[in-house]
Amino acid sequence: MTFAEKPAPKIQSPHDVLIAVNYTGICGSDVHYWVHGAIGDFKVKDPMVLGHESAGTIVEVGSAVKNVKAGDRVAIEPGYPCRRCENCLLGKYNLCPDIVFAATPPYDGTLTGFWTAPSDFVYKLPEHVSLQEGALIEPLAVGVHITKQANIQPGQTVVVMGAGPVGLLCAAVAKAYGASTVVSVDIVQAKLDFALAFGSTHTYLSQRVSPEENARNIIAAAGLGEGADAVIDASGAEPSIQASLHVVKRGGHYVQGGMGKADITFPIMALCAKEVTARGSFRYSAGDYKLALELVSTGKVDVKKLVSKVVDFAQAEDAFKEVKQGQVIKVLIAGPNEKAQPVSA
Amino acid sequence: MTFAEKPAPKIQSPHDVLIAVNYTGICGSDVHYWVHGAIGDFKVKDPMVLGHESAGTIVEVGSAVKNVKAGDRVAIEPGYPCRRCENCLLGKYNLCPDIVFAATPPYDGTLTGFWTAPSDFVYKLPEHVSLQEGALIEPLAVGVHITKQANIQPGQTVVVMGAGPVGLLCAAVAKAYGASTVVSVDIVQAKLDFALAFGSTHTYLSQRVSPEENARNIIAAAGLGEGADAVIDASGAEPSIQASLHVVKRGGHYVQGGMGKADITFPIMALCAKEVTARGSFRYSAGDYKLALELVSTGKVDVKKLVSKVVDFAQAEDAFKEVKQGQVIKVLIAGPNEKAQPVSA
Amino acid sequence: MTFAEKPAPKIQSPHDVLIAVNYTGICGSDVHYWVHGAIGDFKVKDPMVLGHESAGTIVEVGSAVKNVKAGDRVAIEPGYPCRRCENCLLGKYNLCPDIVFAATPPYDGTLTGFWTAPSDFVYKLPEHVSLQEGALIEPLAVGVHITKQANIQPGQTVVVMGAGPVGLLCAAVAKAYGASTVVSVDIVQAKLDFALAFGSTHTYLSQRVSPEENARNIIAAAGLGEGADAVIDASGAEPSIQASLHVVKRGGHYVQGGMGKADITFPIMALCAKEVTARGSFRYSAGDYKLALELVSTGKVDVKKLVSKVVDFAQAEDAFKEVKQGQVIKVLIAGPNEKAQPVSA
Amino acid sequence: MTFAEKPAPKIQSPHDVLIAVNYTGICGSDVHYWVHGAIGDFKVKDPMVLGHESAGTIVEVGSAVKNVKAGDRVAIEPGYPCRRCENCLLGKYNLCPDIVFAATPPYDGTLTGFWTAPSDFVYKLPEHVSLQEGALIEPLAVGVHITKQANIQPGQTVVVMGAGPVGLLCAAVAKAYGASTVVSVDIVQAKLDFALAFGSTHTYLSQRVSPEENARNIIAAAGLGEGADAVIDASGAEPSIQASLHVVKRGGHYVQGGMGKADITFPIMALCAKEVTARGSFRYSAGDYKLALELVSTGKVDVKKLVSKVVDFAQAEDAFKEVKQGQVIKVLIAGPNEKAQPVSA
Repeated sequence: MTFAEKPAPKIQSPHDVLIAVNYTGICGSDVHYWVHGAIGDFKVKDPMVLGHESAGTIVEVGSAVKNVKAGDRVAIEPGYPCRRCENCLLGKYNLCPDIVFAATPPYDGTLTGFWTAPSDFVYKLPEHVSLQEGALIEPLAVGVHITKQANIQPGQTVVVMGAGPVGLLCAAVAKAYGASTVVSVDIVQAKLDFALAFGSTHTYLSQRVSPEENARNIIAAAGLGEGADAVIDASGAEPSIQASLHVVKRGGHYVQGGMGKADITFPIMALCAKEVTARGSFRYSAGDYKLALELVSTGKVDVKKLVSKVVDFAQAEDAFKEVKQGQVIKVLIAGPNEKAQPVSA
Repeated sequence: MTFAEKPAPKIQSPHDVLIAVNYTGICGSDVHYWVHGAIGDFKVKDPMVLGHESAGTIVEVGSAVKNVKAGDRVAIEPGYPCRRCENCLLGKYNLCPDIVFAATPPYDGTLTGFWTAPSDFVYKLPEHVSLQEGALIEPLAVGVHITKQANIQPGQTVVVMGAGPVGLLCAAVAKAYGASTVVSVDIVQAKLDFALAFGSTHTYLSQRVSPEENARNIIAAAGLGEGADAVIDASGAEPSIQASLHVVKRGGHYVQGGMGKADITFPIMALCAKEVTARGSFRYSAGDYKLALELVSTGKVDVKKLVSKVVDFAQAEDAFKEVKQGQVIKVLIAGPNEKAQPVSA
Repeated sequence: MTFAEKPAPKIQSPHDVLIAVNYTGICGSDVHYWVHGAIGDFKVKDPMVLGHESAGTIVEVGSAVKNVKAGDRVAIEPGYPCRRCENCLLGKYNLCPDIVFAATPPYDGTLTGFWTAPSDFVYKLPEHVSLQEGALIEPLAVGVHITKQANIQPGQTVVVMGAGPVGLLCAAVAKAYGASTVVSVDIVQAKLDFALAFGSTHTYLSQRVSPEENARNIIAAAGLGEGADAVIDASGAEPSIQASLHVVKRGGHYVQGGMGKADITFPIMALCAKEVTARGSFRYSAGDYKLALELVSTGKVDVKKLVSKVVDFAQAEDAFKEVKQGQVIKVLIAGPNEKAQPVSA
Repeated sequence: MTFAEKPAPKIQSPHDVLIAVNYTGICGSDVHYWVHGAIGDFKVKDPMVLGHESAGTIVEVGSAVKNVKAGDRVAIEPGYPCRRCENCLLGKYNLCPDIVFAATPPYDGTLTGFWTAPSDFVYKLPEHVSLQEGALIEPLAVGVHITKQANIQPGQTVVVMGAGPVGLLCAAVAKAYGASTVVSVDIVQAKLDFALAFGSTHTYLSQRVSPEENARNIIAAAGLGEGADAVIDASGAEPSIQASLHVVKRGGHYVQGGMGKADITFPIMALCAKEVTARGSFRYSAGDYKLALELVSTGKVDVKKLVSKVVDFAQAEDAFKEVKQGQVIKVLIAGPNEKAQPVSA
């Protein structure tokens, strides 16, 4: 990891905006690229700027831009689809094969001074939403997209496997969707304690027993009756996924929201006999950022609580190390144009 | 396996009908109970009458019955839900935990002289639909239910893994749903030849290569572009399920329609990154029998072609042996009240 | 209107329960039958007991009943479908043509001493939910069903035409579904004031101008941009329905939740050119009562606020007069077995 | 109406293609603009080229174009959305407020020599699909979109009001969706005779009786039982729309696919009490052209049968007159670059 001087990008279309980056959150995938140089088929070949969870301030707008103007503070959606393929036209731009996504090789990320984006991929922050919160719209949009896949209806019961940032945000979004019971499951008690404070109604500390037994325990602990209406795996861990299929009720939904191993041992009979609907979830698509910002703006999800620490750009490498060690939830890096401020109350 | 004299059942509610059974098809699950005495958690403890694919003739109707009368020929839906649980009230009676299903322990099956059923679970055959076709409505309803789970739209491409009776029927139903390309995949060339004659547009003989390679080959063979809109696994075989996840396109549907092992190695990353919707399918529910009969009645699915053989009740045991050996597609047993007739043209 | 002595009903099936009625709310339809003797095609020919919004205490249960026992306090769902027709089997029992619905001719209502119901149509009240709240589950279930038809997603904007009991409850349910903006519209300022206190985020006093102008005003007043994501008409009034079609955005949802005239002048071009999805809503179906009780139990909808008055059974006629005059929101009648208590705080 | 020399358009983006127009169909809306100078709020102020139902031959492609090359014959989708608004991103580009649509003021139409389009809005015709058929993909796409809104499932019953080109195509598409009964309704017997030959299973000649009585007659004539699963109004006529609401069954779908008067008398009580889902339909969106071409290519819809006549460009005005008089179904104009050929068998 190193710092590099790069020329600032320029607006290339009348629909583009130029943004000075203020805050960038560190994501597990950033750390993974840093440590391993690849995620699945995505391999880093040339030096790559990291970061894709950013908020910034508009510096300049193209001639066709109407939704923002210079000086506006914005959350930056960091992936830009082709707008022309079948998936784009059908409204599923997260599945665009040609999407240009920040910090996914070979594309540079947002942990930089200036960034350009099409104007429909920046979202003006209301006055009472801070730039730090703006940087957290990205992981919240991930949680929004995952949770949408689970088709949660008011009054339903939801189990979320994993109480890392994404799992915590899924739990919070599930409540915003009206879930009456939200159970967070993890192998670390401290994370569960945090989850309970953040919004989950129940927690369960996963045991070294069979997935079936963990599932029975979760059902008993949270009074889920026949099982949960929806289960979200935000851990990517094999035993969690297995337990997910045993904890979901007949006709329920299970969403795979985190990625771990490519192939795992999977209880296919449970999927079949209970007629479960299982869905993968990949990044976010139309409407997700808007809803994420709405949830922050209306106070339904208090993303500030997730911020363990805010550091200056010069401390970025130390921040990556801390995230790698797993003792923090979310670390924000103040962009080169910004001095780190403590999280606003 | 033995023959037994049992007292004929009696109508117990004004909504019931009494039926003389004419024809019963042999299902793989019947053979499985016969050979292994159990399927998963369902264990045969006492002697159990087999059979659940039956058509018969109404002998008597209860006082509240309006849809059929004595003498009517009917297809018999063989599972009777409680009508009062959450799943029943929500219209998903196949997920009723208290369903009484023929030839599922501890309940006797339909391979018997007389049978009672609630009148809304028998379906009057139009004059031009034979009793033999009537007995095949059951496996077709299985295919209808599986195919509904795949959300097939006209013009879409569908891959069906397995060309046994259920796979063949799924392929035929997919065409009735307007699929323009239907690819049958199997490890037996003769089954594929039959599939092509029965309605599939393409076939692929599965090779002893990786699931990824089989998937690439299927895509190439049928010109599926990025992948299939929908994949139905009607085989329950682990390599087929794995290939299913690799052959489906981004945002596509995969349905698990057959049951094999309880746990398998599963390409979870493919589900996640392609945002696949996966669904299990279990028996059939409201509307499935009606649609199955409609498809036969309008000539869209010619179930008669599946009948390899029709035997008399006295030859039932031999018939089971033949099905077990796998050299036939579907064998019908003429009920004790019926002499076996050749399949009507 | 008169009081009559009637023999108490008896349990007739092992699935039935016998309930002593404690509280019954007066509904507009009760008043309508009282005043006009008919609603549409439903004509009162013989003396009919009114009432269908009731809660009571279980007196006796049939031998097959498991969900409640004598002494339990329950909300009573007052319509009992046939469980055997196509709509019942498909999970839409509110559309059952043979449903036996309380206080809909020729069937008697619940404003009586004792009532029998199938056990799956009574809902046990948690300890902290009062019998008065239990009687309000019925109108809330109406609001739940209407609101479900509108397909509201978190963050969306909703306009509710009419601020009577059903309109108020729809607004509250819309918020539970995550709507961020809920606009109540009425012609009476006092009702709007109540709506704002009850949960709406905005109100609009309908003016004597064209529906298009009222729609533009609503959009401006609540900052709805191009229009509302969903509009619910809970008024049944022609000008409100017309404005509904003008206030909804392209691709939005409009639900007709209240009934007035059989035929009205309707802006069909708006429906067509904006590709609006319009749905009728009729009573409630599977899951609605359960969700209504959940919303009360979790404090998301405070139905107690709607109760203007609680009167003794002997004062029932006066209570009907007051409801007819329209100066009250909801009046509860304490059943013959109960002394009226003030609304619990 | 006049002929004018105009400079040929030029490719303006690397994604554009330049097309020589071969055939253009005349649509009712073209005639309406010609006769009335406006449709609703769309008013013709300057001379405007008519036509939007065209097929042509690619002359030149931009540097980024991959799906077609010079010489390819294509169906031309004639409306180009902004790709950046909320509706575009959500996959509903037909609702884009900034769409540039051919022959909708102030934009010129396709009845011209050369035309440019983004490459994702042209669809290569397979060898066995003629350019004349290619010109008919546009009205078929209208029918596809309308029919999608009706949510038709295999085995369902569908009534289509109006047997003009769009109504005929809706009926054909409904069959491709698996409808088993398709009833065409019109006031002209000759159109019904054509409908029966084109694919409808039943017809009904609308009488000068009440909408309720026409509805009862349709139900009786086609054996629809309680009513039709889906009703499509492709007439825009008030009495047809009224009958639509009376002919649809409880819980059924009604789609408004044609536009007539802005406001009509509408049976709102029927919508409400039967819990009908009503949807407007406007033009077509993602996937509709692709499916329309698929239906022609696979022979499921034989659009050639609709062509009453093919005329040379010089005879265009006469052709408009004939369409106005209503004695023809569809007239094609051979573009200035093409000599009119008789319809291929």
